[in-house]
Amino acid sequence: MMHQAAIPLGQSPRILADSADDGAAVVAHDVVVGDFRDLADLRRFAVGCDVITFDHEHVPAAHIRALVADGATVLPSADALRFAQDKAAMRERLGGLGLPCPAWTRLAPGPAGDAAVDALGAQHGWPVVLKAISGGYDGKGVWMVATPAQARAVIAEAQANGIDLMAEQAVSIVRELAAVVARSPFGQGAAWPVVETVQVEGICVEVLAPAPGLAPAAADEAQKLALRIAVELDVVGVLAVELFETADGSLIINELAMRPHNSGHWTIEGSRTSQFEQHLRAILDWPLGPTEPTAAVAVMANVVGGPSGDPRDRQATALGAVPGAHLHLYGKQARPARKIGHVTVLGDELTSTRSAANLAADLLAGTAHEAPDMGGSSDE
Amino acid sequence: MMHQAAIPLGQSPRILADSADDGAAVVAHDVVVGDFRDLADLRRFAVGCDVITFDHEHVPAAHIRALVADGATVLPSADALRFAQDKAAMRERLGGLGLPCPAWTRLAPGPAGDAAVDALGAQHGWPVVLKAISGGYDGKGVWMVATPAQARAVIAEAQANGIDLMAEQAVSIVRELAAVVARSPFGQGAAWPVVETVQVEGICVEVLAPAPGLAPAAADEAQKLALRIAVELDVVGVLAVELFETADGSLIINELAMRPHNSGHWTIEGSRTSQFEQHLRAILDWPLGPTEPTAAVAVMANVVGGPSGDPRDRQATALGAVPGAHLHLYGKQARPARKIGHVTVLGDELTSTRSAANLAADLLAGTAHEAPDMGGSSDE
Repeated sequence: MMHQAAIPLGQSPRILADSADDGAAVVAHDVVVGDFRDLADLRRFAVGCDVITFDHEHVPAAHIRALVADGATVLPSADALRFAQDKAAMRERLGGLGLPCPAWTRLAPGPAGDAAVDALGAQHGWPVVLKAISGGYDGKGVWMVATPAQARAVIAEAQANGIDLMAEQAVSIVRELAAVVARSPFGQGAAWPVVETVQVEGICVEVLAPAPGLAPAAADEAQKLALRIAVELDVVGVLAVELFETADGSLIINELAMRPHNSGHWTIEGSRTSQFEQHLRAILDWPLGPTEPTAAVAVMANVVGGPSGDPRDRQATALGAVPGAHLHLYGKQARPARKIGHVTVLGDELTSTRSAANLAADLLAGTAHEAPDMGGSSDE
Repeated sequence: MMHQAAIPLGQSPRILADSADDGAAVVAHDVVVGDFRDLADLRRFAVGCDVITFDHEHVPAAHIRALVADGATVLPSADALRFAQDKAAMRERLGGLGLPCPAWTRLAPGPAGDAAVDALGAQHGWPVVLKAISGGYDGKGVWMVATPAQARAVIAEAQANGIDLMAEQAVSIVRELAAVVARSPFGQGAAWPVVETVQVEGICVEVLAPAPGLAPAAADEAQKLALRIAVELDVVGVLAVELFETADGSLIINELAMRPHNSGHWTIEGSRTSQFEQHLRAILDWPLGPTEPTAAVAVMANVVGGPSGDPRDRQATALGAVPGAHLHLYGKQARPARKIGHVTVLGDELTSTRSAANLAADLLAGTAHEAPDMGGSSDE
């Protein structure tokens, strides 16, 4: 998707890919196959790049600093990216700014950690959320534990695997939101409409743009919060702030991502400037583009897992059912709970737009087996 | 632009490029360097392609037929493409269908050709248009001659260069329009709003979508005309029908193109389905997408020629002036009268949208030297 946005801008990005048949590698021109955890591979990749950026947050900070020492420009910087890589550092920093976060604590190995979880549970109630401080995604590295005994089991297993944990209050939420913004080195900021993200088993399955029924004051607050984080953390590029909305309408910060994010994929067709173009404009220090929506409603539905077979063989069927669906396949092999693509549908109102997006995504995933109820009588 | 549209569809197109630094070659993954006039190169290119299509009409028909005899699928077919390659064949065919074309005649070599031009001029008036029957584009291969003597000079030179000519009545027009449609092998048709194309010295400089002030009946007529041509000529993919509008509101067919066309570039952002995605859907025999506009007005301004230097160095300036401009650079070296990119701006009304598109295109071309008049008093 980044490459797609780069083409009209006259840019010819180099991609660091895990393998030659990686989804990005088979659509881009300039591909270096290598391991993002290997400094030698990163150095080989960096030669001749004007600016280096990311589509995930797992490149080790020490390697980023080494590239910068070599003379490379890397955006966002390692100093900023740290707060997307290390959830404890993020909580410390945002807490220090007075921004709303769940109660949390680091878990030292051994009895001290067990005691810290117990204390958090005693103060804020059970269940408690245990999280890997770094490396988690799509529900991986997050455990909801209902009792001290369950907590001990997770802590022991994490410790055995060398995973550092933190514990957080399980916030009682009505839904999840995301505020996606961008910031350039010059200091320009831009915010897209705040969206609702619908999660199933820790995986985002749908994004509703704008977040239905969100009070304008809450939307303003979320955008300002995200723009403030971008400034305070000196983020360059796209920043996605995942938020919890509570019953009283408060917003609490869940996670940060410093790259184009699943909650912003709807902007490819749903906003005047997509998050991918905006990210490129930002890291190139160009003026940012307008973020207004192109339709009253945009719904993005992820294509998750699905049966075996090539989803490309199901595209004609999906488009037959929803001719206006914007299909995006990532060139990934399907496996359970893996996002292999997404569908965006634009519309005038939420219900029909949401149905259409989900129908197209299900048909693409191969998981829709029945025609939707068209409202006819049941014996026809 | 075709590659850009192919990425979200999970397609990984192979590009036949003149050279390894061709604009398309440096953004695509699977590039074969070769000559589209060389059958061996075409055969080497065709191995493993599911379907082969075009971004210009200059591949020799005999080579296309040879590829099909080898077992390749080529869309549009050589039989259809002939009417975009051979302007005399097109005039004969469309005339035979009773569709509105200028009066015209083939020009045989020698005195018979001279006499035919004289007769056309005597009947329909001078000037007369002389055209190369094949191979022209962007005003090349078209000569407006005011007298029989001028006609003789052009005919003699064309003959010396082995160029077959035809002569056409110079239609008295108020403007040029284009009706862009698509058709799938299944037979589905789709038509975008009819646009006005603004030409300077035979080169399209602007496209206004929809054509301002065009009577709904005329727009309907143009769309029906284009869809009928697509059916009658068995076109698969995008068909652009360039039209003359005369003072009495009649429409006369100028040229055909059977591929995504400059007059449809505005659809990338300005329509729910771009002409590039539609072309891919059509040649894959997928359902076609909706063609409704995403804004009240879209203006596409070509970036033509310009001074030396890399237009990428002027992108930040263009976006500073018009942040919402959609820039498209083609990775081509600038030279006079060469289209090296385009800009699309969407808006609510024509005048400001047109100004913005032209300002951004001029800044990108490096040809804008003065700030636009902002309406202040002249002594400020």
